Amino acid sequence: MENPKASAKMRIAIDAMSGTNAPLCVIQAIKTITLDANDIEFLIYGDEIRLIQLLKEYNVSENAYKIVNTQSIILDTDKPTEALRNKKDSSMRCAIDSVLNHEASACVSAGNTGALMLTARMVLGSIQNVKRPAIAGVLPTLGSTIGKAIFLDMGANISCDEIALSQFAIMGVCFAKILLGKDNPTIGILNVGSEESKGRDLEQKTYTLLSTLDNFIGYVEGHDVIHGKADVIVTDGFSGNIFLKASEGAAKLCLSQFKSAIYSNILTKICGLLMKPFFQKKLEFLDPRKNNGAMLIGINGIVVKSHGSSDDIAFTNAIRVAVNLARNNVNEKIVEEMRKLNHEDESLSLFTKIKETSAKILGIKKSDE
Amino acid sequence: MENPKASAKMRIAIDAMSGTNAPLCVIQAIKTITLDANDIEFLIYGDEIRLIQLLKEYNVSENAYKIVNTQSIILDTDKPTEALRNKKDSSMRCAIDSVLNHEASACVSAGNTGALMLTARMVLGSIQNVKRPAIAGVLPTLGSTIGKAIFLDMGANISCDEIALSQFAIMGVCFAKILLGKDNPTIGILNVGSEESKGRDLEQKTYTLLSTLDNFIGYVEGHDVIHGKADVIVTDGFSGNIFLKASEGAAKLCLSQFKSAIYSNILTKICGLLMKPFFQKKLEFLDPRKNNGAMLIGINGIVVKSHGSSDDIAFTNAIRVAVNLARNNVNEKIVEEMRKLNHEDESLSLFTKIKETSAKILGIKKSDE
Repeated sequence: MENPKASAKMRIAIDAMSGTNAPLCVIQAIKTITLDANDIEFLIYGDEIRLIQLLKEYNVSENAYKIVNTQSIILDTDKPTEALRNKKDSSMRCAIDSVLNHEASACVSAGNTGALMLTARMVLGSIQNVKRPAIAGVLPTLGSTIGKAIFLDMGANISCDEIALSQFAIMGVCFAKILLGKDNPTIGILNVGSEESKGRDLEQKTYTLLSTLDNFIGYVEGHDVIHGKADVIVTDGFSGNIFLKASEGAAKLCLSQFKSAIYSNILTKICGLLMKPFFQKKLEFLDPRKNNGAMLIGINGIVVKSHGSSDDIAFTNAIRVAVNLARNNVNEKIVEEMRKLNHEDESLSLFTKIKETSAKILGIKKSDE
Repeated sequence: MENPKASAKMRIAIDAMSGTNAPLCVIQAIKTITLDANDIEFLIYGDEIRLIQLLKEYNVSENAYKIVNTQSIILDTDKPTEALRNKKDSSMRCAIDSVLNHEASACVSAGNTGALMLTARMVLGSIQNVKRPAIAGVLPTLGSTIGKAIFLDMGANISCDEIALSQFAIMGVCFAKILLGKDNPTIGILNVGSEESKGRDLEQKTYTLLSTLDNFIGYVEGHDVIHGKADVIVTDGFSGNIFLKASEGAAKLCLSQFKSAIYSNILTKICGLLMKPFFQKKLEFLDPRKNNGAMLIGINGIVVKSHGSSDDIAFTNAIRVAVNLARNNVNEKIVEEMRKLNHEDESLSLFTKIKETSAKILGIKKSDE
């Protein structure tokens, strides 16, 4: 197959077999996209017989896709290392391979996050000078108006140092420019307070590094994130994951209690019905499906992770994220930003100095204990 | 003043000057408590003139309190170390001193958390063998029924090791037995996944230590906490704070959007009014005021932290927590549990061994980097 850049159409590789609702939701999403845009072509990886059936059922234009039959599926229970070693013929692996071989400009998968990250890192490699790739996603915010913020790391790096966290910020800004359409997105570090003295060594050292950037606004607390205080919020993957699951859990609980109140009796049901459009209008922006599609950022190729329980609306969004990132050459922008960082005195050389100092401090602290 | 234990009444020391709504909410709370119980006496620390005015205005029985005039107030902006050194005549410090001098069985303050913790540690000291005191509070949960869980550390220890975290679990169980009234509360570690391999060194080592306890249920994820998967959830103060602020932020956002939908037009306002009691019923358990009152656990004396923005309902709850903990001799129970831990082969000796091993592993990892 020819290079996707030479072709008039953009080609997106799809892992059609991963996720709770695959392959049905995947095919429905592809159908939606093809109705909107005729300059996108899909390379669909999965069980050919089942895919052909569904594509026919949904009447997807034959010009819009090519199916590549694959032999296995990476399960959520598979260990990433084993998936990498033993499932080279899986829909996920083949979709990633297609990005390596320039058969596709990006790939999308709703599969096992650990396996996706490890496979993407091993197959595609990291962008030059990127210490750690991360998972960057979109969060809904409500400040003076409804908005969005880029949040990373969502869980790829259980722990990381200040260099990695500062790089997340740089990469997050590239992502935010494309996805939020902002010229100069602001950066905040997730922390337990907004004063400079707050947080762990990690937050304080990252603060020092990022404070050289004019779009750095300092620390943001948990509740600030949702109020859109910063466009890009960086934290390690452990805190990021705790943050996400806590807010998702609380939001879901509130919504389920509201629904439960509406189902109290016939009167409340009628009121609920009358109010439904107003509730929907006010809560629509919180729908996680509308913000689905996280980028494995720092990988040398565009890989988008869709939520494991994605339905067609969620998967459609993940594809749109992939298309958007590919059209805007996100990785070229990241390479450029990382290159700048290497050439400017204030940045990587400073990073290195601070890292050396911090290693010494940590060494002293360790021996004190 | 005589020893509170010798007196028929239980004496509770109150920092009446700290918090956004002090001293008004404090006096209102004292009024509420005195209407419910006549076996509690308050030692109220603060600006005597103002307090007398308010106590008269609210017609609080003169038998229920003694006022001790204090000269200064610890502000939220005060650095803990400076508050400790320079504000020995503050309402907060004097309330803590009264616990040291056995003039009160417990004290309650809505003041600066850092200053309260530092002052309590320095004045009262830690319970023997307790490595780090923590902040333990109550969270509402909704599993099959509405319930509560004990969560710690809420933010006292930005970082801590597996020994401290395991001790949080032991102390949290004592707290849960009293506040939740459960015979054998279950323990969970906050983590990014439920499999044994998940999390950082901290979670994995704490898992090893706690797995010797029969009420340990393993890891709980962010969204599991609110579903009541464990009675006691332990984590370091950084993750704990991120968790709390993320869930509070998300819950508040959902509620404000619901309210905003109800205010859309006259029809929605009428429906909202009709549905109000049902919404209230379903959401009441989430009201943070109803679960207000966190214990500085591991301190050699009962110190309860009320939220800085407490109103009278919230402060009343904080006083109730203090009374409950004092009546049930929580610290004697903690001392007993810590003593057991020291005498059993499976526990502290194991703790020490694992700590040594982990120090070695960390040393190797550090030199690898």
